[in-house]
Amino acid sequence: MTLRFVTSNPHKFREAERILKGFGVNIRHAKLSYPEIRGDNPAEIAADSARKLKGKVKPPFFVEDTGLFVDGLNGFPGAYAAWVLSKIGLRGFLRLMKGVRRRDAVFRTAVALFDGKRVVVFKGEAKGRIAPSERGKGGFGYDSLFVPEGSRKTFAQMVEEEKDAVSHRRKALERLAHYWRN
Amino acid sequence: MTLRFVTSNPHKFREAERILKGFGVNIRHAKLSYPEIRGDNPAEIAADSARKLKGKVKPPFFVEDTGLFVDGLNGFPGAYAAWVLSKIGLRGFLRLMKGVRRRDAVFRTAVALFDGKRVVVFKGEAKGRIAPSERGKGGFGYDSLFVPEGSRKTFAQMVEEEKDAVSHRRKALERLAHYWRN
Repeated sequence: MTLRFVTSNPHKFREAERILKGFGVNIRHAKLSYPEIRGDNPAEIAADSARKLKGKVKPPFFVEDTGLFVDGLNGFPGAYAAWVLSKIGLRGFLRLMKGVRRRDAVFRTAVALFDGKRVVVFKGEAKGRIAPSERGKGGFGYDSLFVPEGSRKTFAQMVEEEKDAVSHRRKALERLAHYWRN
Repeated sequence: MTLRFVTSNPHKFREAERILKGFGVNIRHAKLSYPEIRGDNPAEIAADSARKLKGKVKPPFFVEDTGLFVDGLNGFPGAYAAWVLSKIGLRGFLRLMKGVRRRDAVFRTAVALFDGKRVVVFKGEAKGRIAPSERGKGGFGYDSLFVPEGSRKTFAQMVEEEKDAVSHRRKALERLAHYWRN
């Protein structure tokens, strides 16, 4: 049975395709944008989106929501990370971070699968901190600013295998793959 | 018939009560928070909220949504103005504005009335610019940073009558009052 990933973000699709392939799961792209609820919790947002896509996308399918929560900004930009980036860019985000001491941050991903019967949510997170300036050319979104715990490189400075080894998205997708294959 | 204003924000309620009283309309406070859709358009957000509150609040009632759209930030913080403020505060917002040349901004309010039969939306906007630092003690939200066109004072430096004379919220509520009384 083909598993569909519903997303309008080609970067997310390519990353998920690569990661899931490593766990023996092939996926197809259902390129679709859909409205999301407001909220601070990627798990609630992804679950809500999966429920609303029932009847619109052929199951089994999954959706993904990722947020970036910065301690010194009370969790901003949170689940609005992508929207904030589209408005103020990484340069705006760095202006906002100027002088912020608590640069610890966490990426949180939630994947919500609808298998035709019910919605199941898988989560993954990566702790780290926000670098003082952009570094690296890989990845997308905030990757050039995020240094995961235990590393000195940003996600954007890593080769794919390095990023996947510690990333929030890999953790969530690995949980999905285990569930899916059992 | 009592008109209810559904809001969890006491500042908004007091301001609306004062403004509508001036147009001969008395309102009551339905203190309630409710989920809002994501979006850039206060009119769509308010209309959606009014529809979802049918059956939960006794009609006639209205809801209000206000956004602040800054030109030099591609419309950020937009309809998320209140949420952004709760996270990064006016100090964070001012860091973000540092060096931004196009400081023109617009406040947009939409009021959605459910009269028991249908939802009607009333809009109001106020153009102005973002001041380089906070000024004044009145108002709430971004008022201490917003200088409306034709003035040198921020909303927070004005007495209530001055603010109401030019404010986005007064314009939308005046339209509501005219509709309601006819």
